[in-house]
Amino acid sequence: MNTTEALELFYTWQAKLSAYNHAMSLIYYDGATVAPKGTAANRGRALSVLSEETYKLSTSEETLSLLSYLDGHRDKLDAKDARAVYLALKDIKEMQKIPMDEYIAYEELLVEADDVWHRAKEQSDFALFCPVLEKIFETTKRFAHYCAPEKEPYNYCLDKYEKGLTMDACDEFFAALKAKIVPLIKKIVNAPSIDDSCLRGYFDEISQEKFSYELMRAMGIDLEHCGLGTTEHPFTTSIGSHHDVRITTNYDRSNLSYSMFSVIHEGGHALYDMNSDDELAYTLLDGGVSMGIHESQSRFYENLLGRSEAFINYIFPRMQECFPEQLKDVTADEVYRAINLVTPSLIRTEADEVTYCLHVMIRYELEKRVIGGELAVKDLPAEWNRLYKEYLGVDVPDDKHGVLQDSHWSGGGIGYFPSYALGSAYGAQLLHKMKETVDVEKCLSEGNFAPINEWNREHIWKHGCLFEPSVLLENALGEKFDPSYYTDYLEEKYSKIYSL
Amino acid sequence: MNTTEALELFYTWQAKLSAYNHAMSLIYYDGATVAPKGTAANRGRALSVLSEETYKLSTSEETLSLLSYLDGHRDKLDAKDARAVYLALKDIKEMQKIPMDEYIAYEELLVEADDVWHRAKEQSDFALFCPVLEKIFETTKRFAHYCAPEKEPYNYCLDKYEKGLTMDACDEFFAALKAKIVPLIKKIVNAPSIDDSCLRGYFDEISQEKFSYELMRAMGIDLEHCGLGTTEHPFTTSIGSHHDVRITTNYDRSNLSYSMFSVIHEGGHALYDMNSDDELAYTLLDGGVSMGIHESQSRFYENLLGRSEAFINYIFPRMQECFPEQLKDVTADEVYRAINLVTPSLIRTEADEVTYCLHVMIRYELEKRVIGGELAVKDLPAEWNRLYKEYLGVDVPDDKHGVLQDSHWSGGGIGYFPSYALGSAYGAQLLHKMKETVDVEKCLSEGNFAPINEWNREHIWKHGCLFEPSVLLENALGEKFDPSYYTDYLEEKYSKIYSL
Repeated sequence: MNTTEALELFYTWQAKLSAYNHAMSLIYYDGATVAPKGTAANRGRALSVLSEETYKLSTSEETLSLLSYLDGHRDKLDAKDARAVYLALKDIKEMQKIPMDEYIAYEELLVEADDVWHRAKEQSDFALFCPVLEKIFETTKRFAHYCAPEKEPYNYCLDKYEKGLTMDACDEFFAALKAKIVPLIKKIVNAPSIDDSCLRGYFDEISQEKFSYELMRAMGIDLEHCGLGTTEHPFTTSIGSHHDVRITTNYDRSNLSYSMFSVIHEGGHALYDMNSDDELAYTLLDGGVSMGIHESQSRFYENLLGRSEAFINYIFPRMQECFPEQLKDVTADEVYRAINLVTPSLIRTEADEVTYCLHVMIRYELEKRVIGGELAVKDLPAEWNRLYKEYLGVDVPDDKHGVLQDSHWSGGGIGYFPSYALGSAYGAQLLHKMKETVDVEKCLSEGNFAPINEWNREHIWKHGCLFEPSVLLENALGEKFDPSYYTDYLEEKYSKIYSL
Repeated sequence: MNTTEALELFYTWQAKLSAYNHAMSLIYYDGATVAPKGTAANRGRALSVLSEETYKLSTSEETLSLLSYLDGHRDKLDAKDARAVYLALKDIKEMQKIPMDEYIAYEELLVEADDVWHRAKEQSDFALFCPVLEKIFETTKRFAHYCAPEKEPYNYCLDKYEKGLTMDACDEFFAALKAKIVPLIKKIVNAPSIDDSCLRGYFDEISQEKFSYELMRAMGIDLEHCGLGTTEHPFTTSIGSHHDVRITTNYDRSNLSYSMFSVIHEGGHALYDMNSDDELAYTLLDGGVSMGIHESQSRFYENLLGRSEAFINYIFPRMQECFPEQLKDVTADEVYRAINLVTPSLIRTEADEVTYCLHVMIRYELEKRVIGGELAVKDLPAEWNRLYKEYLGVDVPDDKHGVLQDSHWSGGGIGYFPSYALGSAYGAQLLHKMKETVDVEKCLSEGNFAPINEWNREHIWKHGCLFEPSVLLENALGEKFDPSYYTDYLEEKYSKIYSL
């Protein structure tokens, strides 16, 4: 075998993985959108066969010897191929450190956990979920030990979602946010409140869907390659490659902003996923590189652009066209103020831009302490409620609106939450950098996203997984990450809105 | 290896095939329903990998030796396992008779043909489609020769869709239909026509969709396991097993009956597919056994039940609820007469019950002559038009409304058409038999499909592919197939409607 032949096999292997991923993503997407309600078990059978095939394809001796061969001839590979080989080997080696039976048992545990969590949330009963969650935390710790015995287990968890992230870095980051955000919230809470009643009323689903497409078009999303579905929880997924991406939303008939900002948020994820360089399609380098960078894009579009005065001025006439009756006596300025109302509240996904990171911090602290052995899973609800009171001043009425609200833990996503806050902060610094060469205000006020998207494509999107997230970010920023851009942005924007 | 172990491997193998089928059916369904328009090539890549994997899984030496072992120990298998082994070996042996490269070239030809046919139909230009269609007919003949050199090629084609069917049987069957139907049509055409204007108007898609679900519920379709989508051409597909079936329809805003009878027709397919015995799920015996039996069910629900007076009387108030404005001055009797209007026309899928089989006969004759070498593909349009004039008395204005109307030939479905007519005739005889023990009129007038469905489940559905279609049918009928039940039914029903 020579390098050319090996590379050909490597591309075929990656294309095969893409096809399995295509099938599995689509089965998942179908299940969440249009599949008949009673078909979960049928879907489960197919998914179990396909994921076993994927596992075999990834860990077969043939694959390993191919990858080792290529790894040994790194000097003959271009940067893309070398990176793909590196990522493939890294994943496979990690997979192999976990005993197969424990891996399968964990996959089964997560299927059970999803079901138990749904029921527990419905009944607002943490005790129901507690034994399963204990097992998830235990397994997470055990796997962390298998894969990276030299690391603190929670550092391993953080690194999984944002390569290189550590507790030390998180602590420092969150301390910086807290120092600025907590006083800001205090001032806002004492200022006269904003009336957001213009966003309340009755907004039928058909008109909301029409408005969703308006938003997607305005953002410059290519509707030939991006679909929109309806699900309980909004999400974004690629189907096989960046050539087919789907976003979903959920329509709240009594609240116009919920779906509006879900669509813009997921649309940001979609733009990132859809704009990998075409050469990367059907390889391991296709799509977004980390959750932090992904959230930097989704929250960039949702908040930095979507909740800006310039964008609201542009989109408002289109909003009025979709909801002529409901918005006939409303002004763009009223909408702008309403979507930027700040109130300490219970639910992360409905939180405003200012209080949002406090929700994340609470989850980060709790995860860190549970994984570190300082907090028992059974004590999570009490600690959750105590921290909500301390950080946000709100009383949690029940576990449904408290510790059971998010799906992340039941899905095994421990270490995921910080990427939301990090992404928000990355975004603010990226915007600052972008403004050096792009007149963002002008673009937004004209509904011309092209120059903004072009900047993001050039600096972030097209690179797919070619670089580690920190490298990608620093290349784009031209300097080190610094959360003060984010806190400065929040202070400036909300001081103006609340006349502080 | 002993038989028990071999059977276990055989079940695992079948389950794996089901998972691949699940993925491929879903990719197809997604492409036809909600996938963004520009994603066909992306889908094509995944399908090509998955079908290659399926081919390998089917024809691997491991599989063959397993199947041969089981075949050699037939006496130790129960009827179900023995049948599944027989069907698997039959398919694989046939697949192996076709050289791999020709098989792949044909698959690629069909992908091209689908595209070319769509364009040719749009432009009403047979010349564009002709070269591809020639290749399809040639390949069909060549493959027939590879697989069954002892047979007339067109007999091989017929047998593919309805096991045991021959040109002799078809000729006899169609002659019997023609002898009764042609004089009936003559009488109807000379009788005063029916006014079907109550079905014309403006029927919005949302209300039509609501009505579709009413129909599905009325038919006793389990909506927990059957979904409804919208596509250009209505179809039914199983996703992985009979536990997940999807039907589709197409809403014509100016014509209420088009989607109504599409839904009932596809609903009939769905009932058949969904009601295989649960033991058959994830095996080769799951789902319908042949196109003829499948059409006997779909056209049974569509016409024998759906277009009956008793059913229309039952469903009419629900129709009025869905379309209160449009139907406020209409009676059930007017609807009953309107949906049974007989007019010789151009398009098979829109044809009434009486003229329908003539559309099928024309296609049968043309296919037979092309495969038999008596007619050149390039002469198909002229012959098509001549036969439409002769059989139905209509002038074909262009190829779009003529020889290019159906998708079957571009999909390689040569030999498929007769099953539509056969199925219609099977259905009439099944209804006659059912009426010995079920008060069908009463059931329909009360909207109680349970006893009807129960009879079909017991005699047809639950058996999946356990029996050859002719055996299944004769067991259900208690006698030989006899098309005079069908012609008698048509004569009786339409003599009454048209007061002949």
